[in-house]
Order: sequence, then C-alpha cells, then structure tokens
Amino acid sequence: MSRTVIRGGLVITATEEVVADVLVEDERVAAVAAADSGLAEQWMSGTDEVIDATGCYVVPGGVDGHTHMQMPFGGTYASDTFETGTRAAAWGGTTTIVDFAIQSVGRSPREGLEAWHAKADDQCAIDYGFHMILSDVDDRSLKEMDSLVAEGVTSFKMFMAYPGVFYSDDGQILRAMQRAADNGALTMMHAENGIAIDVLARQALDSGHTDPKYHGQVRHPVLEAEATHRAVQLSRVAGAPLYVVHVSATEAVAEIAQARDAGLPVFAETCPQYLFLTADELARPGFEGAKYVCSTPLRPGEHQEALWRGLRTNDLSVVSTDHCPFCFGSQKTLGSDDFTRIPNGIPGVENRVDLLHQAVVDGHISRRRWVELTSTTPARMFGLHPRKGTIAPGSDADIVVYDPSAEHVLSAETHHMNVDYNAYEGRRVTGKARTVLSRGGVIVDDGQYLGHAGRGRFLRRDTCQYLS
Amino acid sequence: MSRTVIRGGLVITATEEVVADVLVEDERVAAVAAADSGLAEQWMSGTDEVIDATGCYVVPGGVDGHTHMQMPFGGTYASDTFETGTRAAAWGGTTTIVDFAIQSVGRSPREGLEAWHAKADDQCAIDYGFHMILSDVDDRSLKEMDSLVAEGVTSFKMFMAYPGVFYSDDGQILRAMQRAADNGALTMMHAENGIAIDVLARQALDSGHTDPKYHGQVRHPVLEAEATHRAVQLSRVAGAPLYVVHVSATEAVAEIAQARDAGLPVFAETCPQYLFLTADELARPGFEGAKYVCSTPLRPGEHQEALWRGLRTNDLSVVSTDHCPFCFGSQKTLGSDDFTRIPNGIPGVENRVDLLHQAVVDGHISRRRWVELTSTTPARMFGLHPRKGTIAPGSDADIVVYDPSAEHVLSAETHHMNVDYNAYEGRRVTGKARTVLSRGGVIVDDGQYLGHAGRGRFLRRDTCQYLS
Amino acid sequence: MSRTVIRGGLVITATEEVVADVLVEDERVAAVAAADSGLAEQWMSGTDEVIDATGCYVVPGGVDGHTHMQMPFGGTYASDTFETGTRAAAWGGTTTIVDFAIQSVGRSPREGLEAWHAKADDQCAIDYGFHMILSDVDDRSLKEMDSLVAEGVTSFKMFMAYPGVFYSDDGQILRAMQRAADNGALTMMHAENGIAIDVLARQALDSGHTDPKYHGQVRHPVLEAEATHRAVQLSRVAGAPLYVVHVSATEAVAEIAQARDAGLPVFAETCPQYLFLTADELARPGFEGAKYVCSTPLRPGEHQEALWRGLRTNDLSVVSTDHCPFCFGSQKTLGSDDFTRIPNGIPGVENRVDLLHQAVVDGHISRRRWVELTSTTPARMFGLHPRKGTIAPGSDADIVVYDPSAEHVLSAETHHMNVDYNAYEGRRVTGKARTVLSRGGVIVDDGQYLGHAGRGRFLRRDTCQYLS
Amino acid sequence: MSRTVIRGGLVITATEEVVADVLVEDERVAAVAAADSGLAEQWMSGTDEVIDATGCYVVPGGVDGHTHMQMPFGGTYASDTFETGTRAAAWGGTTTIVDFAIQSVGRSPREGLEAWHAKADDQCAIDYGFHMILSDVDDRSLKEMDSLVAEGVTSFKMFMAYPGVFYSDDGQILRAMQRAADNGALTMMHAENGIAIDVLARQALDSGHTDPKYHGQVRHPVLEAEATHRAVQLSRVAGAPLYVVHVSATEAVAEIAQARDAGLPVFAETCPQYLFLTADELARPGFEGAKYVCSTPLRPGEHQEALWRGLRTNDLSVVSTDHCPFCFGSQKTLGSDDFTRIPNGIPGVENRVDLLHQAVVDGHISRRRWVELTSTTPARMFGLHPRKGTIAPGSDADIVVYDPSAEHVLSAETHHMNVDYNAYEGRRVTGKARTVLSRGGVIVDDGQYLGHAGRGRFLRRDTCQYLS
Repeated sequence: MSRTVIRGGLVITATEEVVADVLVEDERVAAVAAADSGLAEQWMSGTDEVIDATGCYVVPGGVDGHTHMQMPFGGTYASDTFETGTRAAAWGGTTTIVDFAIQSVGRSPREGLEAWHAKADDQCAIDYGFHMILSDVDDRSLKEMDSLVAEGVTSFKMFMAYPGVFYSDDGQILRAMQRAADNGALTMMHAENGIAIDVLARQALDSGHTDPKYHGQVRHPVLEAEATHRAVQLSRVAGAPLYVVHVSATEAVAEIAQARDAGLPVFAETCPQYLFLTADELARPGFEGAKYVCSTPLRPGEHQEALWRGLRTNDLSVVSTDHCPFCFGSQKTLGSDDFTRIPNGIPGVENRVDLLHQAVVDGHISRRRWVELTSTTPARMFGLHPRKGTIAPGSDADIVVYDPSAEHVLSAETHHMNVDYNAYEGRRVTGKARTVLSRGGVIVDDGQYLGHAGRGRFLRRDTCQYLS
Repeated sequence: MSRTVIRGGLVITATEEVVADVLVEDERVAAVAAADSGLAEQWMSGTDEVIDATGCYVVPGGVDGHTHMQMPFGGTYASDTFETGTRAAAWGGTTTIVDFAIQSVGRSPREGLEAWHAKADDQCAIDYGFHMILSDVDDRSLKEMDSLVAEGVTSFKMFMAYPGVFYSDDGQILRAMQRAADNGALTMMHAENGIAIDVLARQALDSGHTDPKYHGQVRHPVLEAEATHRAVQLSRVAGAPLYVVHVSATEAVAEIAQARDAGLPVFAETCPQYLFLTADELARPGFEGAKYVCSTPLRPGEHQEALWRGLRTNDLSVVSTDHCPFCFGSQKTLGSDDFTRIPNGIPGVENRVDLLHQAVVDGHISRRRWVELTSTTPARMFGLHPRKGTIAPGSDADIVVYDPSAEHVLSAETHHMNVDYNAYEGRRVTGKARTVLSRGGVIVDDGQYLGHAGRGRFLRRDTCQYLS
Repeated sequence: MSRTVIRGGLVITATEEVVADVLVEDERVAAVAAADSGLAEQWMSGTDEVIDATGCYVVPGGVDGHTHMQMPFGGTYASDTFETGTRAAAWGGTTTIVDFAIQSVGRSPREGLEAWHAKADDQCAIDYGFHMILSDVDDRSLKEMDSLVAEGVTSFKMFMAYPGVFYSDDGQILRAMQRAADNGALTMMHAENGIAIDVLARQALDSGHTDPKYHGQVRHPVLEAEATHRAVQLSRVAGAPLYVVHVSATEAVAEIAQARDAGLPVFAETCPQYLFLTADELARPGFEGAKYVCSTPLRPGEHQEALWRGLRTNDLSVVSTDHCPFCFGSQKTLGSDDFTRIPNGIPGVENRVDLLHQAVVDGHISRRRWVELTSTTPARMFGLHPRKGTIAPGSDADIVVYDPSAEHVLSAETHHMNVDYNAYEGRRVTGKARTVLSRGGVIVDDGQYLGHAGRGRFLRRDTCQYLS
Repeated sequence: MSRTVIRGGLVITATEEVVADVLVEDERVAAVAAADSGLAEQWMSGTDEVIDATGCYVVPGGVDGHTHMQMPFGGTYASDTFETGTRAAAWGGTTTIVDFAIQSVGRSPREGLEAWHAKADDQCAIDYGFHMILSDVDDRSLKEMDSLVAEGVTSFKMFMAYPGVFYSDDGQILRAMQRAADNGALTMMHAENGIAIDVLARQALDSGHTDPKYHGQVRHPVLEAEATHRAVQLSRVAGAPLYVVHVSATEAVAEIAQARDAGLPVFAETCPQYLFLTADELARPGFEGAKYVCSTPLRPGEHQEALWRGLRTNDLSVVSTDHCPFCFGSQKTLGSDDFTRIPNGIPGVENRVDLLHQAVVDGHISRRRWVELTSTTPARMFGLHPRKGTIAPGSDADIVVYDPSAEHVLSAETHHMNVDYNAYEGRRVTGKARTVLSRGGVIVDDGQYLGHAGRGRFLRRDTCQYLS
C-alpha cells in the first residue's frame, strides 16, 4: 500500500474550506484531518510521499464533461488525440474528461462506441468516460441506448443543428427522450435551430459574405434560445431530464431559468470561450477570426453579464470546454473561402480551470463555486460522484495542489494542447496547478509531467445524480 | 340609384353604440344620422326600402377570416361548396369570408389560386377573399408571393403540422417570412409541432389506441405552445408579422401574450369550438367523438378561461370558425379504425356570430367587443377595412339587423350548412340575424333567403392594416 | 336650430378614417355622410355655417383627463385659472378637461368639491368634469364617495407619495378601493413610494444636494414600480379597478403589463413630458432644471422606449398632461435652496394634441391611435362616451379641424397658458388645430379665439366604461 | 484531551454521502476517515468513547435559525424558556438555535440584547446566537447596529406587519437596509402588509367574525406577496441583501424566484408548518384552530406545491421553525372572543429535523438536501460555517447519529417542549435522532438526556456567508 500525505493546504470543496491534511492510500483518499490535530504526524511515519501544500489550495481535480478528442468534422479530425488531449488536460488541473463517442448516420451507436474505445484505450493520461452522440435515432438505436446505459455510457447528445450531419428532428429527439425517461439516461442537447441557420448561412454566402464573422451573424441568438425552448418542451412531453450544452446567449439563459423555476429537471453548461471572448474575435482582420469559429458562436460582449449571473444563480451549473481543436494553419483554412466550411471548435481543455480561477480573482464567483462548477457538479451530473468531484474519504485521489498566486500567460508557445494557436493568446492569469494527482499518483509536479499514456482508465458512469 | 333606410336600431360598431338611422345608397353606406335628428324622414321620400330596426342591433356583417370550402383532406372534400357554405354564412350574419386557396406540393401557388377562383366564381352568396396556403416553399413560390400580394391575396398560411402534406420546415417558414417582410404579406401559422405529434400518434396507434379521443391526447397543448413560440421567434428573425390561427391552449395564449408585451407584431385568433366545446366531446361513446376532431384539438375545459381572458386582453383579437365540415355518416368514418384518418374539421360558419353573441349574454365580452372580434378586427387584419367590418359613410353596406332577444336552438335539422351534424346540436342561444344586407341588397330577411349564387364578389385585399 | 356643415375633411375616429361631411345641429352631431354622396349639398341649404375641411383632419376634440387648474401646492397656486387654462386647452384642440377637486386633510370631500365648483363656475371655455382627490380617507369620506358618484364625480385619486400632505396609507387605500368596488368609482393612483422617497430626499439635502437634478435622483424608478405593484395588489384584494396616473418608468410599465396580462382591470396613462423630455432637463445649468420638476419625475432617456411600446400595446391607454403650471420667475423659486420645495408641475394642456400628432409624424403611433389616446379612451375611461371622444350621430359636436401640415414652434411667447415658460420651448412640431368647435360652436378659428368664459359646462360623468 | 470515535455510519453532509468514521477530539472534529481504511482502529486505542453508528446516518446537528424563546407577545410570553426550549431542540437533533432579541419601542437595541443575554445566560442546552428585532429604527438604533455586528449579532429583523408593535415603515426599513449595506448585516423581513391586514381584520371583527379561521382569511396571500415584493425593491434601492422569513404563499415564492433570477442577494426560508399543515387546521371545530394561529398564516393546501418546488429549486433555501409556543389551555385563550388577540405562534423546535426527514422518505427532497436545508445553509446564512452546519475537520463536533428507520408518533404526551399541545399530534414519522453531540459531548443518547442547562454557549456570528 502506497501512502501520500498532502499537508497544510486549504482544502476546498464545493461546500467547505478547511486547512487540513489529506491522507491518500493507494488510489483513494483515506482520511482528511484538521491541520492542527497532529494526526498528520502519525500518518507521515511509513508514508511514501509528503506533499507540502502550504499556501496552496487542495482541490478535487477538474472534471471536463465536454471534449472532442480526434473528432471527425468536415473532412478532418480534431487535432488532439486522446493521448495529447488528456495530457494537456492534466497539465491544466483536469483529471477526468467525458468525451463524445459518435454514432455515424447509418451505423449503430455501439459501433461508434467501440471505435471510440479503440481510440482511447491505453492512450489516456487521466480517467475518462464517454457520452454518446446519436446521429441516427431509430428503433435499433433506441434499443442500444439501454445496453449502453448499463455499460456506463449514461448520457446521449443530440443536435438540433447541423442538418444532414448530426441533426435529429423533433420526432427523433422526442423518441430518444422517452427512452431516456425509462432507462435513466441524460439527454444532452446542442440547441440551435440548424434548419433556420442554414437558410441564413446560404443567404450570406449568396451575398458574398464568406468571412468568419458571418458565422456569428447567421447563428442568431434568438435561434439558440428558440431551440433551447423547444428542447425543454420536448423534454416536458417526454418526462425526461435535459442538459443543454454550451449556452452562450442571454435569451437562452432566460429559457433555462424559466424551465428551472418551474421545477423541471433542466440543466445547462457554458464554456470559458463565452465568458472570456466575444464576437469581436470573429471579426479580426483577415482570416484570423477562423480561430474563434465554434458553435454556438461567440456572442457580442453584452451577453456575458447573463452568463456570469447564470453561473451565480445556478441556472448554469457546469463550465465545460467543448474542447475541439483544429489547427489554424492547416485545418481552419478549409473554410478560407466559405465560413461554413471552417471546422467548428476551439481548444481549451488545458485552460479551463485557470480561467475560472481568474473569475474568482475578478470577483465573479467564490472559490467554492469555482470547484463546484469545474469539478463537483459535472461529476454528479454525469454519474461520477463521489469517486470524482470531491475530496472525501473514499473518493478517488484525483487532487490538485493549486497555487493561487502563480501568474502566467496563456500561449500556444507554452501550452501542451496539440494545436498551433491558443484562443486566449497573451492573456495573463493568476493561479496554476502545481501538483496533480490522478488516482493517488502524481502526474504533474512543478512543471514536470510524470504521467504516461494508458494510466487513465475508462469510467463506467452512473446515471445523473441530480434526479433523485 | 337604389336607396334603403334602416331605421331606429342601435348601431353598434367596435367603438360606438348609437341609436341611429343608416342610409344605404346602392352598395354603400351613404350616411348615418342621429335617430332624433329627423333626417331619416327626408331620406325616406324617394327611398326604395325602409327597414325598421327598432329593438334590434344594427351591426356590420360578420367577417369570417378562416374557412375551408370544398377543401381536399385525406382523400375527401369539405362538404360545403362555396355556394352552400357562403349561403349558410349569410344565414348566420356573416357577409364576408376569407377562404384558403391551396398550393399543392410540386405545383405553384398560382395554380392553386386559379383552381380556387374556379371553384368560387359565380358561386358565392357573399363577398369573399383568399388567403394562400403554401405547401411547397421554394424559389418559385417565393417569387409568386409578390404577384399574389399585388392581386389582393395578401396573406399566406403555413403549417408546422401535417408532415408530408402541408408541412413547411423552419427554413421554408423563415424564407417565406423574410419575403413577407418585404412584400407586406401577413404570415398565418398553424402552430403545432407536427413532427413530434406524429410520433405520439404512431405510438398511440401501436398501442391499439384508435379512438377519436386519442386525437386530443397526442396533440399535446405543450406542442401547440412550442410551435407558437417557434413561429414567434422565426418571425422576429425575419422581421415579419405573424398571425397564429386557431389558438386553443392556455400555454399558447401565454406565448402570444409574451410576444405582444414585447411589442412584436404578433396576432392570434381562436374559434368558437375552443370557447364552447371541450375534449369531453372527443371522448363521447362510440365513434361520435369523430364529429369533434379538428386541429388544434378541443382541449380540457380548464383551457377556456385563458381563451376568454385573451379575448378580453386582446392577446386574442379575432374569432374565426376554421369552418371545415365533413359529414359524420360518410366522411368522418374514414377514420373509424384509426383516429389519424378522420378528416380534421368542424362546421361552424353559420353559428359563429350567434355563439359570440351568447358570450355577450353570458357576460364574457361586451357588445362592442362582439362586433370587433367577429367583424372589425378580421376586416382590418386582412386588409378589408373600411369596406368591411364597420358601418361608416363609404363602407360597403354589409349590414346585419340583429335581434338580440330571439332565442333559437342550434341544430343540424335547421341549419343551412351542407353537413349532417351540428357541433352545437341542441344548444339554445339568444340572438339571431333577422335581416342581412350584402353590398346594399337584402339577402336574408326574416327566415327567407333572398340572395343567389354569384352575388358575392372576389375581394382584392390590402395588406394587414395593423402594421402601420 | 343652428346648423353647421364641416365638409371634405378626413374624419378620423379611434377606428375609422373616412372622407366625410359632418352635419352639426345645435350642440350635437346630427349625421355623418360620405363626401361623395351629395348629401352635404342638401344640408347646406338652410345651413348657418359651412366649414371647409379639405386637406384637414376632422377629429373629436381632445379630452385631457388630468389637469390641476389653480391647484394649491407648497404655499402657492398653479398659475392657470380655470379661465386661462381652459382657454389655452381650446387653443390646443382640447375641448374637455377633467380636473382634480381636492379634499383637504380634516375636511370632507364635499367641501373640496364645492370649492372647486366655485372656482370653475362660469369660468371655463370648454366643458369640464371633476375627479376628487382623497386626502383623508375615513368613514365620512367613504360615505360621501357614494353621493359624489351619483353627482357625476366618479373617480377618486389617492397618493402613495407626499406624506403629510396628500398621502394615504395602504389601509386607507384599501378601504377606498373596497368602497369603489361597491359604488362603481374608478380609483386613480399616484404611485410612488413617498415614505422611502422622503428618506432619500432628506439624505440628499443633508449631503448638500439641493439642486433640481436631485429631485429626479431621489424619486427612484424602482420606487415608482414598487408603488405601482402595490396599488395593483391592493386593487386585487379589494376587487376594484385601478388607473395609474403619469407612468414614467420602464419598470412601472412592466408592472402594468403584467397586471393586464392577468386580466385585471388595471389601466394607465403617461404624459407628453415623459415621452418628449428626459432627466437631462433637470440637470440644466443653474436653477433652470426647476422648470422640469414634476412627480413622477422625468426619467433618463432609455425609459422612453418602454413608454412608446406601452402606448402601442395598450398597456398605456391614455395620454394626459398632468397640467400644473408654476411660473419659473416667481413660483419655482420657492425651492431655489431646496429642491423639495420647488412646486411640482409642468404646463402642457395646450401642447398635448400637437405633441402626440408629432408622434404620428415620427412614426410612433398611427393617426387613429392619436385620436384614441388623446380623446376616445379618456372619454370612455372617465364616463363621457359617446358624448365626448368621438364624432358620431348624437355626440356632442366637440370637433377639431386639424391641419396636419401646419408647422409651428412651441414657445412661451406664443402659447396661451398663463405661465412664463414652455417646457418644450423652441421645439418645432407639424400639425395644429385650425378650427375648434365646442358643443357646436366655433371657439377657435384660424388664430382667433371666439369663445368666452362660462361657455363650458360641468359634466356629470358616468362610471368608467371599460368595466362592463 | 477527550476522544470520541463515531464508527460505521453514513456520514451525510450537504454534498457528500460516505461511509466513514469520525474522530472527535475535545470539542471539534479532528478527522474523517474512510470506513474501510482501518484508521479508526488506530484511533480507538486511547479513545474515551466509541459510538457505533452502523445503520445510522451521521449528520451535522440541526441549526434552527428562527426561534422565539420566552418571547413577549400580546401580554404573555412564549412558554418555552431558553432552558426548556433548547433542551427540546437537542432532543430533536438541533444543536444550534439563533433566537430573536427584541428592541422595544422607545428603547435601544442594546438594551434588548442585554435583556436577552440575561435570559439565555447559563440556561441553554446547546449553542445559540441572536438576531436582533428592530422595532424602533432611528439614528441611535442605526448607530448601534454597527456595534452589534461587531459583537456577533449580524442580522436584523424588521416587520412590515403588526403596526403599533413591531412595525417599521418603508422609510425605516430603507434606512436600516442602507446601514446593513455598509456594515455587512443581513436584513430579515416579516413580509406581510400589516396596514392592509389590520383593515381586513377590523372589518372581520365588525362583522362578528371572531373565530380563528378568520386569522387565515384576513392575512391574504396577496398581501404576503406584496410585502415580499416591496421588501425586495427596498433592498434593491439600498443595495443590501434580504432574507424573507416564513414564506408560505405561492405568490410570495414567485416574488422570491423572480428576484433571485435577476441575481439579487435575496434569500428565503419556509417552516414545517407550511409544508405539513394547511388552513383547514384553522377551521377546526370550536376554538381548536387557535393552536394553529401563526403569522404568516397556514395556507390552503394548494400552496404547498410551490413550497416544495421552492425547496428543490433553492428559491427557498432554509427550513426554520419560527418556534413560538403558547399553551392552548391558558394562553391561546386570550383570543377566545377575538382572533386578533390569539398569541401568534406554533411550537416546533423539536420536530423540524424529523419532519424534514419525513420529506426525504416521502420523496420531496434528497438526504443531502435535508442536511442542507436544516443545517448547512442556515449555518452559512447566519455566519456560523464551518463551525456549525457540517462535519469536517476543524468543525465543532455538533453531530447527530440519526436512525432513519425509527418510527415514532409526534405528540404532546412525549415531546419535551414546554407547551400543552403538539401541532402535529398523532402524526407518525420515520426517523429519529438517536445520539446527539454538542461540541463533542453526548447530550442525548438513546432516549436519555445527558446535557444540562448552561452547557450551550453564545455564538458570535460572522456576517452572512452567501454574499462574497
């Protein structure tokens, strides 16, 4: 049995802040003791490793519930593999990801899941789970949902956008939601009215508007809000819970708030890009706006107030990255003549925890809320609590010793994601993961990567833990 | 020049109630004079006809903005022709209808319009106009919209229900709305999420639920409200006005109210069947519920409160009939084994004015509001004011001398609609059209029909008069 | 019998616009005839006067439901007497005012009414009615309400502001509303939380903030909205209707809209000063801001959007003036060292109809809505319809021939109000009353005043006509 | 140093549920260890006491943020002293109360606080803090607020009800809130429009309606909602946080929800009586309804749905008791002829934790939410976290070993509160505190009381911990 003691840090969970010592035995947290109790002295005899956390926060490792490693999109693949992407996540203090396996049109969900298992097996630096994207809801898909839930793939994403690719119509969505109501799965929704957006996009192109900035203009905030409303209503009819991904528009937050006030089991996430970047980036000179093409799109700055408020009111309860990197020099260029052909996605898995800590420094949220938004709630939302998302006796020892005063600059030159640009290039932030443990083992320490591909294990997830 | 004087009645318009005499010269109202002014005496010398309206209301003839004469549906045709249907309308105090010409899938709107002109030419007892149903929005259809507007067909209906028949997808709707924003047309919407409803209908049938009552259950009120919300949002994106037909659900009224509070040009109608009948009718023993199958469906009784309130707050500003009769004995039976095959529709063009007058008697609305809901507002909504919808100098002399104390019983045995049942069979109402003038000519008088087919003329309508 | 024919104008009422001739016999409208009917030719033989209205609008005279002639306030009196004020009203196209008689603390309502009758008797150029301000709701006052209603004083105003002067507490308000629920009276409310405002005003003065601009700052929009909400809730408890005067804040409009959506009998007015002036006027250099001190106060410009929208959605259904003039040189100066001592009020009875016509020119409202807001609705709201507020057979011949293209400049140099400044000084507007008839007599014509004091009569009003 | 180990229970906090052992050293929690880690074995050598919690929950002791021990009301005193009341609390699993010291009209807050200290000193079985009721907000009171905050009395309650007794007007409320905005205090509000209620109560009595049921009828839910809205708006103007006590009406919950959606620092509690009892109790035959007279009053049953929903959505974030017992036989009788003289209050400090656990059993809330509502959130709300409200290293060892399957019947025959009736008489509940520790000492164990008066200490509270 290996033993590690993390001493003298401020242990922060979603609800507590205590100066305490943490005893890790093998892969799990064995105990937490008051720093002044003297218990740590006892523990240290016969302990393999003592980590001094004085002056640091000791927080549960980040859980990023929305990543797309190696995702095929528009004829290319997201540039981070499970190996490079999970390593970058670890550097940034994230110790769990839930990635999206994809059912292709005409194939079964299971085939998609197996393909994603093949991509991730023995590659990951940290533990990982899968959601399943349903692109072809039919009788067979519905039936397979049940068995996937049984195997720990307990959430299914559908798209109201991207007709002809990932798009599900309202009937397919309703049927999948009905099934979810039975088997306990959580329905995740990309909520944009893609049918209407494609009309506007076609019209923009027909008018010669091919630049990246038109990506933001045709994906109208009202069309995000409309789809959000529709998804909520379909979930009401089905009697099923709903999780709306990457909420970016004021009007969409309002729809979420209204549903939640009514007591409906509706949840939503936003992403750092919507909190820290605006539509101005899309209008950068030349083709540089392409770096910021993602869907839902970056919005004009005035939308951010609603997002920050939503994070405080809990109408937005998770911050994920929607990490989906495409190299600017070689991949984003697919759309140099046509913004609709720019691969959609922004890298960020490495930067989320730091950016949200910056939100603490800036006064937007409290430290506990930082932990809650980036770790505890996604863990419970996706059925991983209390293994993940907290520091408690029995939990996996996924722990970050976080230096709240370390200043650094986000940059492609220093980041570990496999992509040639950083969406936050040049931004100075305060706070950085110093030491990262994954299931008890130190995988990052003081600027050194000590992990290895294959260390991370597949997580069979329970169903959403906010429903009982 | 023919002259008619209508003497001594209470002339009621949307805003006034005055005891006055009305001078009709040829087809139009020449003057209105205070009853005690003595002017009528002068008029009566050299007047062809004097109608004594003492004790009666003198009101503008009803304008029914939503009828479906001879409409093809599910392999049969609505049982009223333009001849029988407009005659029945006249009996009931309605002197104008706006019927729906239909574009068939694969054909042009103009072809549809011509077919409807052919049906109506020389057949109508009263004046009539056409809306156009768009079933196949494409470049050609959009272009033809402009010329139809120029010809007085200034409103276009689309369906969010009936996939494979009348259904338009959100992209088609958006495009047609954009065109309407340019050419001034009004978009009318059947707002039900037909894609979702068809899933529920299929599931009901698969469970052996084939009775008429399931028609009401699968067409969930939330799916009416959802589509209403979506239509509003699409109209916001297009910058175009919207008119929602046959609103029946509390939740849909709330969507309309919210849009109107925001100052959007959104309008809505309800129909007598939603005000006076409930889902209980659909559950009548045997197949009798089929008589009440229409879409949107009859709702549980608790929805009526919101409808009455909406009529008072003006969130609902028109009462039309959606008159679409199918004989119970020979047509409704198409769905005797499958509620989805029951032709959708309820007769009512003859009963609307009386039923709404009953609402006056019952205290739901005022007399002026009765005139406004059944005549003035539809006239203005559909570009017919001041020719229709009022009694004012220069207006068409479409006038009803209405006896507010005449009790009678609604019944298939006495009605003039060409259909073998009456949806309000046996209901006693107070108030009845005694004398009906269409463009100055008496076409109904004291239980006698004096009109004839072909008297009614096609009305080239202006665009909606609530937008300037 | 005198006869006047008004020929060839565009007769505009709340719902119609027709080119028509109007026959006036003695004090009333005898008939309205289509201009092309030739009837006017007949009328003109034996007619005393023919007024050519070609190129002009013929509209019902304005009804200003909110004036304060000779009102005592803070040790002085509003500078317009009933003689000067009603004459100025006539110049501006207003032919009816409803002024506020005041119950003093410790006296009975009847004493106040008699005092106001004494002030107005034989003084008025136009017809007039009275509302009653209740300053001391007790058993006697409540009892007297009934008899006042019987005498045609059918509306009672209370103040949630001005503690120690006009203020009624919530218990007094509730009792008066309960009585109104029984006797049919309409409760009018000055909705501002005066108790809280006085705290803020005291704090401002204690901080040496004595300038007029602090008047606007301490009368917080939220404190208008709060009182509006409270008044609505008290009226719900009492089961009584409510009319909120001089609504100025976005948040207050929202409260009104919410109440009306719920179907409550809640009505509201705004005034030209809130539509055309902003808080910037209060901050004018020196003491000039005092000219613009009124309560509710002028608001920052961003509130105007909600007011215009409210006028279109009918959440605001009346535009009154709250005419209450105090001379800048001799009266406003009472507050030169203390903004709380500046007499509250702005002159405007002469400018309302023109300013609202400018709103037609500017595209905010339609012509019909202009007539409705300034004449028809206040007439019906205060029980004067159809005598006032319309041009219909039998109505009083209070008629304005309005030249829609006459440009002029609002100014104290040319206005007829007895006050040394004009709140809209220098503003150019398009449209002007050319000829004004009061009960059939021409009192203003082409820049000449032909009326005389005492021509106007006291109007015994019915109860509010929006409640049945 | 004393040591206690609590072994093998399910340790439940607001966010975690872990099978764990808890080590208590002296008065505080020293450590929490995974039950399977073997650490407890080490701890047990040299441990004074081992508590076997197998099959039980181990939860933080309840924090009741709203009690009124020995409170003077209507000429009598609440029947529980600090001695009897805190002992009863301990029996029921509550280890902290925050009671209300009262400023009398004409005296200073400090005098009130000293009087309450005198009552509580050396009397309490458990730890306790004080809120301060402000009955006379003036310059002196405002100044004293600052020093009271410094002494750990960090919350101030005002009443919008009870004119002439506790009532503060809106100006006093605004001033106190402004002060709170500066000194960090939390304003607690009894939100009922007492001025209006007193009118209705007077009218009821004048009509001979003296029975207890009229207590509920005159305290109209709309008048609770109105006051709630007003309190929110005053807090907006002051820029201060607000905590609304004993929310009972659907409409009031809606006001809270709306404020919170807007991101305002507004919080609210409800009480078990509103969740488990209804207005039907007030209408019990004879005078028995008097047992259920409290303010806000019990509401008709349909209000409970909104309360349960509010507890789930967190619009209601605390469940307190408002414990204020008056004996039925000797005290409630003061109002036998006049419901307004019935002392207001219901006993409950002993029953809250069990009743809310019953809500877990009934499926209304989760176990974690049970702990959060009854312990963690009130602790943080009132500045006691992490000393109170959780089981974490360093926290006070206020711990309850709770047997979730122990059935018992609530009854005055068995309860420990000093009052002759139980509001839930005869109700069978599942779940009971088996062992209760206060600061490390066992004070209740298996049906034996082991504590003593004076064991409990006064808590100097921090300011509200939800504001940073």
